[in-house]
Amino acid sequence: MISKLIKEIQKKNAPIVVGLDPQLGFLPKKLLHAGFKEYGESLEAVAEAVFEFNKAIIDATYDLIPAVKPQIAMYEQFGIPGMVAFSQTVEYAKSKGLIVIGDIKRGDIGSTSGAYAMGHIGNVTVGSKIFTPFDEDIVTVNPYLGSDGVQPFIDICNRNDRGIFVLVKTSNPSSGEFQDREIDGRPLYELVAEKVVEWGKSSMDGDYSNVGAVVGATYPEQGRILRKLMPKTYILVPGYGAQGGKGADLVDFFNPDGLGAIINSSRGIIAAHTKSEYAKFGEEHFADASRQAVIDMLDDVRGALGTK
Amino acid sequence: MISKLIKEIQKKNAPIVVGLDPQLGFLPKKLLHAGFKEYGESLEAVAEAVFEFNKAIIDATYDLIPAVKPQIAMYEQFGIPGMVAFSQTVEYAKSKGLIVIGDIKRGDIGSTSGAYAMGHIGNVTVGSKIFTPFDEDIVTVNPYLGSDGVQPFIDICNRNDRGIFVLVKTSNPSSGEFQDREIDGRPLYELVAEKVVEWGKSSMDGDYSNVGAVVGATYPEQGRILRKLMPKTYILVPGYGAQGGKGADLVDFFNPDGLGAIINSSRGIIAAHTKSEYAKFGEEHFADASRQAVIDMLDDVRGALGTK
Repeated sequence: MISKLIKEIQKKNAPIVVGLDPQLGFLPKKLLHAGFKEYGESLEAVAEAVFEFNKAIIDATYDLIPAVKPQIAMYEQFGIPGMVAFSQTVEYAKSKGLIVIGDIKRGDIGSTSGAYAMGHIGNVTVGSKIFTPFDEDIVTVNPYLGSDGVQPFIDICNRNDRGIFVLVKTSNPSSGEFQDREIDGRPLYELVAEKVVEWGKSSMDGDYSNVGAVVGATYPEQGRILRKLMPKTYILVPGYGAQGGKGADLVDFFNPDGLGAIINSSRGIIAAHTKSEYAKFGEEHFADASRQAVIDMLDDVRGALGTK
Repeated sequence: MISKLIKEIQKKNAPIVVGLDPQLGFLPKKLLHAGFKEYGESLEAVAEAVFEFNKAIIDATYDLIPAVKPQIAMYEQFGIPGMVAFSQTVEYAKSKGLIVIGDIKRGDIGSTSGAYAMGHIGNVTVGSKIFTPFDEDIVTVNPYLGSDGVQPFIDICNRNDRGIFVLVKTSNPSSGEFQDREIDGRPLYELVAEKVVEWGKSSMDGDYSNVGAVVGATYPEQGRILRKLMPKTYILVPGYGAQGGKGADLVDFFNPDGLGAIINSSRGIIAAHTKSEYAKFGEEHFADASRQAVIDMLDDVRGALGTK
């Protein structure tokens, strides 16, 4: 799977991913009202608006980007209808040739992680039929439970040509509380990174592994160290834009081959219409604002990487 | 919420919880075939069988137990229909007076954890209406992202009288890989435990906090230490039965007041009909086998605690 992601990144000269993390607060009123008209004031109405929102953003940006990353919490918050919108979004993005990174941060004891892996990147056999329930290409995984909580995901990566990104150093302000604590003189996130390298060896796909890592754009110094510690690991870098990361901070997340990282922006792209710099588009043209925000992000990232 | 859980535990003299973690491998054929008859070979058929299975087990055990703990992965593996079965199970268990612990192990950056919290223990306002999407009483939370990933759950505990159990020392074989690593001479799980105590102070509900901890039955020595380190923290103890924990191992998870812990058994109860000791019930009477397994577990736990 990682070789497929790399191919798409190179084809579009775009080491970026758009985070599809819709929130009620910035859903265009027109879409919400259309939902209300069809379903009344209900979770179904919101879910319908969410899917229409995502569809418009995908339509406006898919030619520029290799992948999207729906954050499942933003769908789960709307219950079953929200989960339906998640599933529809995955399907629609794939129909447009995009790679889908499900930001699910699952992780549990072995057999339970196996169930998550089956549901998200694997398949389930029912009688004589086979189903692929959520069918993402790649998912994010929480490492707190250790190898036996991660291995079931890797097994399915190998069986189904899929990928995972394991949380190493997250982008949030309190990520250091546990992740930065020193063990034998080195922070916990480095030990997790070493495990990611070890796990990744069993799932190589070209020069890189299907087992990637998450390292926040908000921690560029740690990014530089982790880049060197995990030379064959692709790094998913959240925290660009709304969380404060900038293109220039990101250079060290990449390898000398110009590969090795993919930068996520969520609110910075999908809520562009709410920001003063894109106000001229108006709420009506939110998807055009998102397209312009993608173009500006690409300009920033390519500028920093010298690939304009 | 924790005072409500304690009241139910005391009323039934039963510091246990039944894990509703259905797997295709042990669903009674009769239920599966009924599903196939109605929906064909489909995820809907499996989900229907799962819900009927849970309903029968709840009906056969609810007078003996204070709570159930559905593991959401076992539903998520069946996609949207599985999530519907999860939601129906939560609703049905609550209708029988049971407290529902959603074993969801979610945890993300602040705003995203907020979305999970809203969806699982909170509510969502849509126009003039308020919805409670999954509506569990208590959920499990992963601490790897630190305070800002946990706080949104605590805020909703306080607002809605709900609870959480934060992963401290998990029951699986590789839990020590990161959790046992020493930081300033003490294992990581103790640092997490100290944070749990700190977080818990803002959500006290009687003698205990709504912020509990997960500590595996498979690590009784660590359980003893953690019990003392977190005197006002309720401990959810998975790993009894199928994972190897026994009643005698569990004594030290409890406080001198006889409270402070609730022991989970999943497969040991719900798959009792597949075990030789309960073979006499036959697959047809799987729910009676589960009831007997609950009675035997209560006998073991009460014996160990001296509360027979």
